[in-house]
Amino acid sequence: MTIDYALYYWPGIQGRGEFVRLVLEDAGASYRDVAREPESKDGGMPAMMKLMKGEGQGMLPLAPPFLVHEGAVIAQSANICAYVAARHGLVPKDDASRANALQVMLTIADCADEAHDVHHPIASSLYYEDQKAEAARRARYFVSERIPKFLGWLERVLERGDGDHLIGKEHSYADLGAFQLVEGIAYAFPKALGRLGPKIPRLLGLRKRVAERPKIKAYLASERRIPFNTKGLFRHYPELDVEVGDEMEP
Amino acid sequence: MTIDYALYYWPGIQGRGEFVRLVLEDAGASYRDVAREPESKDGGMPAMMKLMKGEGQGMLPLAPPFLVHEGAVIAQSANICAYVAARHGLVPKDDASRANALQVMLTIADCADEAHDVHHPIASSLYYEDQKAEAARRARYFVSERIPKFLGWLERVLERGDGDHLIGKEHSYADLGAFQLVEGIAYAFPKALGRLGPKIPRLLGLRKRVAERPKIKAYLASERRIPFNTKGLFRHYPELDVEVGDEMEP
Repeated sequence: MTIDYALYYWPGIQGRGEFVRLVLEDAGASYRDVAREPESKDGGMPAMMKLMKGEGQGMLPLAPPFLVHEGAVIAQSANICAYVAARHGLVPKDDASRANALQVMLTIADCADEAHDVHHPIASSLYYEDQKAEAARRARYFVSERIPKFLGWLERVLERGDGDHLIGKEHSYADLGAFQLVEGIAYAFPKALGRLGPKIPRLLGLRKRVAERPKIKAYLASERRIPFNTKGLFRHYPELDVEVGDEMEP
Repeated sequence: MTIDYALYYWPGIQGRGEFVRLVLEDAGASYRDVAREPESKDGGMPAMMKLMKGEGQGMLPLAPPFLVHEGAVIAQSANICAYVAARHGLVPKDDASRANALQVMLTIADCADEAHDVHHPIASSLYYEDQKAEAARRARYFVSERIPKFLGWLERVLERGDGDHLIGKEHSYADLGAFQLVEGIAYAFPKALGRLGPKIPRLLGLRKRVAERPKIKAYLASERRIPFNTKGLFRHYPELDVEVGDEMEP
């Protein structure tokens, strides 16, 4: 069997790479998850670092995830998703729909980035333990303002469409991205999602439907799906899943 | 004259909208900058808020900038730039080059977002004055780690290419984005850019060349170019343009 795509991402976490994995899996694409493969098979971290150091051809990636396809090196998670989706019918063909799908995917990625910055508000290079005070303060705003804003927006986009899909009337990679975002928030901020739940019925319906798609269902049950953990983008630190009431500053 | 595009962005700042303005200007496209036009001509903030509240057709934007073109509503700055660039020959036509151009533009947007989060590390809804302590701490890492990482990466991409262009051998919207990023850093963090300068000669060369492109030169000299200020994405707060030495924590 020919392997079409080589995905490079940190082994051991879902992180930003998971948005890409879901598109590859739903597309039924054949791919290698290089950094998770043994070094004896040209995999592992050394293979990934080699490309990050610029020892390969094509565009130099700043950071994982990146995908190698027919000699091209493509980075930025939403961009990779859009590229793969276009090749496998997971996005409509017209320019406006493609721009809208990417817009939704980029906004999902923005929310995921903010979820990361809750536990790393000062620097990615520091441990969470070294920025806990700032994280606690940022968490209050993320939980009370940002999660409702982003998920509420996705709900409204569904409401303005056919109720089931983010782009037009068909499943697209934007739906896969929304599924992953909700999964991540459900893991990291279960209380916040619980409170918001009644206001986002369509989004929770989408989440359920995506999980039941045959290829996604098989993937989620496989060892390829890395469990959420406290090393990734979405982290469950109970002290950050705060209940924010009237005492909210300022 | 027919107006092809309607851009919606906060009046009074360059912000994320400036990346789009530069592409529209360099393309010689005819566009309205709606929120900056008088209310008497269907412009101003009311016109923008109307679409943000969902009173228009098409995709609901989460936040400005967004562009209306032939009924489509397109948001996310890098996405808008890619859309406009493709219609005006400001990006190569093949899929791999387009994915690489968007990858570069998204990485530029990431750096711009981080420049914003330096003065707003806790919440966008708070004033800088309410998060100065956290901002001071974050600034040390942005200046010593992140600016060199992002600008150093752009330098290497140029070095691996023809030395003058980020994508292939021709001017593209990625070059316009890099110009704006360097302009923003030069305004907000002049000391940091000064120290880094000798290591990024190609990027500084690109900045100079872009500024000399006839349409860009005319735009920069016009009233359409809003001066940088301390309300936008890039803000010059001297206390954040720190000199980081050996005392760097941890």
